[in-house]
Amino acid sequence: MRVLLRVAYDGTEYSGWQIQSNARTIEGVLKDVLKDLLGEDVEIAGASRTDAGVHSLGNICVFDTESRIPAEKFRDALNVRLPEDIRVVESRAVEDGFHPRYVKTTKTYEYRIWNDSVLLPTVRLYMHHIYGELDVEAMNRAAEYLVGEHDFAAFCSAGAQVTSTVRRIVEASVFRSESDPRVVVIRVSSEGFLYNMVRIIAGTLIEVGMGRRSVDSMKDTIESCDRQMAGPTAPAKGLTHIKSV
Amino acid sequence: MRVLLRVAYDGTEYSGWQIQSNARTIEGVLKDVLKDLLGEDVEIAGASRTDAGVHSLGNICVFDTESRIPAEKFRDALNVRLPEDIRVVESRAVEDGFHPRYVKTTKTYEYRIWNDSVLLPTVRLYMHHIYGELDVEAMNRAAEYLVGEHDFAAFCSAGAQVTSTVRRIVEASVFRSESDPRVVVIRVSSEGFLYNMVRIIAGTLIEVGMGRRSVDSMKDTIESCDRQMAGPTAPAKGLTHIKSV
Repeated sequence: MRVLLRVAYDGTEYSGWQIQSNARTIEGVLKDVLKDLLGEDVEIAGASRTDAGVHSLGNICVFDTESRIPAEKFRDALNVRLPEDIRVVESRAVEDGFHPRYVKTTKTYEYRIWNDSVLLPTVRLYMHHIYGELDVEAMNRAAEYLVGEHDFAAFCSAGAQVTSTVRRIVEASVFRSESDPRVVVIRVSSEGFLYNMVRIIAGTLIEVGMGRRSVDSMKDTIESCDRQMAGPTAPAKGLTHIKSV
Repeated sequence: MRVLLRVAYDGTEYSGWQIQSNARTIEGVLKDVLKDLLGEDVEIAGASRTDAGVHSLGNICVFDTESRIPAEKFRDALNVRLPEDIRVVESRAVEDGFHPRYVKTTKTYEYRIWNDSVLLPTVRLYMHHIYGELDVEAMNRAAEYLVGEHDFAAFCSAGAQVTSTVRRIVEASVFRSESDPRVVVIRVSSEGFLYNMVRIIAGTLIEVGMGRRSVDSMKDTIESCDRQMAGPTAPAKGLTHIKSV
């Protein structure tokens, strides 16, 4: 039986999704807890390898097991064993051929910025802090240049091993939260992202919002295919994987 | 010079506001940081002694100093020295006679409940979890009985040293958050609260929302003046002091 898990986590205390021998990771903790529950080592195949400090409301992964536990019961069985900063929000059986890396899903990330003089303690783990007022309208216009199929080499950190840096962004928008205008949200959706892509997009759009770059410079930055032309990689804690559908 | 501070904090790691000899408290950390900044011990007088684990978006306190630092500069001078889970959101000079305990302010608290099957990791430190669907409309009608001047002895934990348990609640309402209907907010405003009062109100209203108590039983519970008649004290982490005005 192949079981799919949707896993939410607070990435603050983790060295990212992917299992590592000497660091605490989401996948590593899941694997330990599954071994505790099933008495066997399972291989976990995840959809998105989020970085250290990045959060998720529902990253998808699958594993195979001979267990007779009904697939939908894994949610609660795992949650009683997992630390509170990792939660399985859904578990269900999927076809044996299903692999989350090879199925087409649109992934939505939000990068959140606390845009006020003082960063409130109760949001500090989930938002980046910019105290000068951001021109959100300019950021949103700059973001429009990202939509569509482009070579995003300028928005990819060195060290990434990919055959192509072409990706298609289906949504890129920037807005202030309706419930709290001090929160600026950068929302980006795509079937696939490059290494650090959303955080470099965020770092570049923040510079637009601060008036350090023009709106139209976004077009040149994309076309340059040069990482040096884009802004800095914004801090991990502001980034949350929202959904994969 | 008397300086007023508005102090926001994530109470997770603290044994409450009030200074204690063997525990880490908000007031204790503030006093240490002020000593570091000013080179002198100051006495801090706070408005609300929040409990261990309770959060605040702006608790008010004052202290006296001979320092020549302009009052409004204390905000940034303290924030560079404070841990990130405590932030001074405002500092300003007040009259020498001003004391936050003896000035009339309406304090607003919100008790937040995550009302969905699984508690999301990114809200776990700031919300109580109730997985069965709450009847928020019933909770709100029950809350209406609390508004006005009553003897709230039924909603006061034992051990409180107060001369009177009569308080006047100016607002008590329960609603689902517009931005996320999984969040149920209990909002209570008053010039003064009894020990654990909002958490006992929350624990009682949750029982109404679960159908374990009737809406109208709230009236009898208030009139009983008997702590045993009210619900349990809801967990501290769901409680946030929102403002004092």
